[in-house]
Amino acid sequence: MRRLRATMAKQKVSALLVTHLPDVRYLCGFAGSNAALAITAKHAVMVTDGRYTAQAAQQVKGAEVRIAKGPALAEACRWLAAARVKHAYYDAEQTTVAALRAMQESLKGSGRGSSKGFFEPLTSSLVAEERMVKDAAEIEQMAAAAALGVRLFEHILGFMRPGLRENAVAAELEYRARLWGAEAMSFPTIVASGERSAMPHGTATEAKLPRRGFVTLDFGVILNGYCSDMTRTVHLGRAGTREREAYDAVLAAQENAVAAVAAGVKAGDVDEAARSVLREAKLADYFTHSTGHGVGLEIHESPRIGMAQQALLMKGMVITIEPGIYIPGAFGLRIEDTVVVERRGCRVLTPATKAWIEL
Amino acid sequence: MRRLRATMAKQKVSALLVTHLPDVRYLCGFAGSNAALAITAKHAVMVTDGRYTAQAAQQVKGAEVRIAKGPALAEACRWLAAARVKHAYYDAEQTTVAALRAMQESLKGSGRGSSKGFFEPLTSSLVAEERMVKDAAEIEQMAAAAALGVRLFEHILGFMRPGLRENAVAAELEYRARLWGAEAMSFPTIVASGERSAMPHGTATEAKLPRRGFVTLDFGVILNGYCSDMTRTVHLGRAGTREREAYDAVLAAQENAVAAVAAGVKAGDVDEAARSVLREAKLADYFTHSTGHGVGLEIHESPRIGMAQQALLMKGMVITIEPGIYIPGAFGLRIEDTVVVERRGCRVLTPATKAWIEL
Repeated sequence: MRRLRATMAKQKVSALLVTHLPDVRYLCGFAGSNAALAITAKHAVMVTDGRYTAQAAQQVKGAEVRIAKGPALAEACRWLAAARVKHAYYDAEQTTVAALRAMQESLKGSGRGSSKGFFEPLTSSLVAEERMVKDAAEIEQMAAAAALGVRLFEHILGFMRPGLRENAVAAELEYRARLWGAEAMSFPTIVASGERSAMPHGTATEAKLPRRGFVTLDFGVILNGYCSDMTRTVHLGRAGTREREAYDAVLAAQENAVAAVAAGVKAGDVDEAARSVLREAKLADYFTHSTGHGVGLEIHESPRIGMAQQALLMKGMVITIEPGIYIPGAFGLRIEDTVVVERRGCRVLTPATKAWIEL
Repeated sequence: MRRLRATMAKQKVSALLVTHLPDVRYLCGFAGSNAALAITAKHAVMVTDGRYTAQAAQQVKGAEVRIAKGPALAEACRWLAAARVKHAYYDAEQTTVAALRAMQESLKGSGRGSSKGFFEPLTSSLVAEERMVKDAAEIEQMAAAAALGVRLFEHILGFMRPGLRENAVAAELEYRARLWGAEAMSFPTIVASGERSAMPHGTATEAKLPRRGFVTLDFGVILNGYCSDMTRTVHLGRAGTREREAYDAVLAAQENAVAAVAAGVKAGDVDEAARSVLREAKLADYFTHSTGHGVGLEIHESPRIGMAQQALLMKGMVITIEPGIYIPGAFGLRIEDTVVVERRGCRVLTPATKAWIEL
């Protein structure tokens, strides 16, 4: 909140309306499902509803809590209208056209005359920019979440066998995650086996693990609000040369990209570090997505680690490095670590083995 | 899609841009995480990216699939601009201010001159209105999801005991859900025990189930895309008179509201059927939320079953009936069924016992 206010002052943002729930949680600690947070240079008000009276009293720091009978958004807008500010800014990425209309209508009769022009869009979110760079306490939380992910991967290695359903693998993984302290999974667990491994987003199905073929496991847990994210691909049974060579190429690409990470490096150069290795192996056409993304309170955050991205990595960013290839009708595989950007290089939060595994 | 086009024709909506993912899934079957669907009277195009080439080919019905290199939204907009329509409509509830700007910018150089005025907002979503009323096949899916919920509740009754952590109860419930076919849970599982039962949205924590006190279980599964939703509250150990009387009052309120459901009834009257019983028991002040909501591909859909809601229930709507009371510092409880609105009365999809249970 203090850092945000400094940025607000610098950018002449006298008042800010925050409605994206992870942003609200980041700024004042409130983790409920209905909230609007209004911030000025000196004050802040967090509005929610009667379901959260007890929870808000427990969680909220640095903002006054108000329990609204009607929509929380309108209540926050009216508070902003009464504050001595000329404009209130909102995040254009997180505000719907309908919400903007409701914001404007909430000011009718507030003595602000025409409400148009009071609310101004921010095209780049101030809060998302703060959230991109994690502080020491956040990195500790993320390291704990990632360590739980590593432990789960090691457990599941001993559990998988041909004939098991993908859903049973996901069930075991998620059950252990819960028992070992996770609040939830950070996204639908991907267990993509056999030909299904050619789907980059193959969430677990009733398909049975094959006698021979890849299984891609991509999963994450939420621990104290922070997400983990990792992918490993293992082979069931004996692999052919093509599978083995493809694995080695993706692993080399992944390691080359991890080695390229450091503060001051362009995000696009990290992507290119992965892509160039696959290009040399004549597999780049099968690498159909970008190399990675930021992680934090949400599973996908800024920055994007993709082709030609000009943004510079900063110390304290937590990003994924996850090249993969997907050959329709044949197989696919992906290897992913989550890393913290450091002044020189990076720290890998997901140190599970990436060696070739045949189960 | 056929029904939607009939509504579009009636309301003179010549072209529609659909970006809300559950709406896309509802209309053309695509369940990926990146999609824009453009619909005119005769044609439809579903745009996604290279990660979903295989999946889109498998899933999409009734629309041409395009794989975009850049943003799917922009590609869909350019297709609409080239169609012979004067305006394209979008859902104001599901379109951010930033997305609208991107939509307008994607038309630059399309020969449409000023792109402003081409895109028009719909203040009430045509697709949400279609989705509110479920057809026979959808009701069958929802009944199957709800039946799995009932089975899970019966299983967990034999599992809970004082001293177990709330997270262990949630883990067991979610593990069985997966094993028995669920794709995922439809929302974070609520296990709120002892004083925590006074939190309407008390998701499971490391707290231990008490020797004496309520445990509220509110959970749902996703089966074939459709969500279930049910709540039961049971008592661990011997209850006092106050707890028992409160339970009886909430149960009477819940049953009175279920009895009030039928096609043609105002949503607000169903809410009042629950609220009036609690008012008589002098507990209405502790009933701090509305009585229910629609369920379907999303856990919260239209209609809202709340105070003074004028919308009329329609045959085929699937809604929850879930009054509860929350006494800060003491206890809380909630009882919830999911029901299908019928011409006369309703069909309860969650027939697990609501009798007083002391474990």
